[in-house]
Amino acid sequence: MSTTSPNATRIAGVQMEPKFGENAANLASILTWAEKAADLGAKLIVFPECALTGYGFKDLAEAMPHAETIPGASTTAITEFCKKRDVHVVYGLLERDGENLFNACVLVGPEGLIGSYRKIHLPYLGVDMFATPGDRPFAVHQAGDLKIGMHICYDAGFPESCRVLALHGADLLVLPTNWPAHAECAAEHMMATRAMENVVFSLAVNRVGEERGFTFIGRSSIMSPGGARLAFAAPAGEEIIIADIDPTQARQKRQVRVAGRHEINRIADRRPEFYGPIVAPNR
Amino acid sequence: MSTTSPNATRIAGVQMEPKFGENAANLASILTWAEKAADLGAKLIVFPECALTGYGFKDLAEAMPHAETIPGASTTAITEFCKKRDVHVVYGLLERDGENLFNACVLVGPEGLIGSYRKIHLPYLGVDMFATPGDRPFAVHQAGDLKIGMHICYDAGFPESCRVLALHGADLLVLPTNWPAHAECAAEHMMATRAMENVVFSLAVNRVGEERGFTFIGRSSIMSPGGARLAFAAPAGEEIIIADIDPTQARQKRQVRVAGRHEINRIADRRPEFYGPIVAPNR
Repeated sequence: MSTTSPNATRIAGVQMEPKFGENAANLASILTWAEKAADLGAKLIVFPECALTGYGFKDLAEAMPHAETIPGASTTAITEFCKKRDVHVVYGLLERDGENLFNACVLVGPEGLIGSYRKIHLPYLGVDMFATPGDRPFAVHQAGDLKIGMHICYDAGFPESCRVLALHGADLLVLPTNWPAHAECAAEHMMATRAMENVVFSLAVNRVGEERGFTFIGRSSIMSPGGARLAFAAPAGEEIIIADIDPTQARQKRQVRVAGRHEINRIADRRPEFYGPIVAPNR
Repeated sequence: MSTTSPNATRIAGVQMEPKFGENAANLASILTWAEKAADLGAKLIVFPECALTGYGFKDLAEAMPHAETIPGASTTAITEFCKKRDVHVVYGLLERDGENLFNACVLVGPEGLIGSYRKIHLPYLGVDMFATPGDRPFAVHQAGDLKIGMHICYDAGFPESCRVLALHGADLLVLPTNWPAHAECAAEHMMATRAMENVVFSLAVNRVGEERGFTFIGRSSIMSPGGARLAFAAPAGEEIIIADIDPTQARQKRQVRVAGRHEINRIADRRPEFYGPIVAPNR
């Protein structure tokens, strides 16, 4: 846990094991874990990707019955909880919008649904094999004193996702994820890098357990704007990670290491005139 | 050292301690270390940022006498070595171009000077406090069987630098660096991330020792396109790191983890239509 400051907000990630296809049980589990986190003083409580539904669906026909509209049944239930405990919650679910299914997450607070995000970068894996790619821009939302930027799992492997959220003013990158085997480098190295290079806090919340032959690798983390681990979960097992974060640390991009001799600013020192090819067509 | 394949090229990084302001001694040292690396079978031999000159100059008047034109005295000497041993060498130096001083590096081979790079992102530190910012685009050069992309130190903290080099077709990101204290996250986490997110090899070569109150932190590394450490140097002390790398591993961007069930492509799966703000003005 980081040093408490008068500006700090306590945030929590719940590394849980959703039950495949059991929305009602998962909603109950989310609420139980959220109570525990709120009892620990957390004001923002984040759950994994597809925490409501599970992830390993084989096709659209199997997945669609588990999808909800946003707002919908679960956002209504979780809004009630947020009102009762005066907290904000982010969780992953499947979103139904007409014929389309999105891998989504929502930010809910005492005031109701604040924002939702539809996963933009889709791996060929699980529900993402047939989900519709996210069709809305990355956005930053206010949750209490924090400006948070939401993205999901594979999105964070693209540095552009986090950069856009940071340039939009995020204090904290929130990543609900379902990292399977082979994502160890992401968990061990990438989240520290994302936080450091953007001078933001990061909260990545992975699930644990198995689903249809895939094992998820835990290692949920909270990183400081310097890339230091404020909290780091085990590779297996359900647990809550907690840290107190001061968003002003993410808003001061100038970093003075030796006054007058060593200073950097990872945002102002960018030179976008040399980044043209980064937006070149990718196919 | 990675598994040898018929397509592999042996590459080496020389984590050395340059002597401040002593170009002639440093050139002799570069040639001595390069002989050792060539004796070990290396075909590409990389030295730190400002290996020829040192880095901690206090102003332009102090630094300029140590700067060279490119091509110039040291590129001529190192070309002779490259011809003799049939190798390629990358090293850092200060470049003089009229009134301008650039923090630069060069790629030299048996055929002479192949390419040079002028550091684009400048921290407020050492010679970069008064160097002219790099004014030429990131570029990829052929060195034997390898397509290499050069950048220097702080550049790698901007994911855009590595992304542009990867989109230009680099197999290997070559980073001469002078990481001081506070750059531990870069050495421990960032280089693995850069390699993984771009599916390229990375060779970061830091210096060691002290200069005008700054201590450099070693930890030179060679990373695989999966973000695995193929070689990793100690935090202090001169040493050579070596790996055999197969550039075809960096050219196959599609990664099949479970056939038909888990495949990704970290380049083709990009969605540049959502990256617009990444090139927004930075001030």
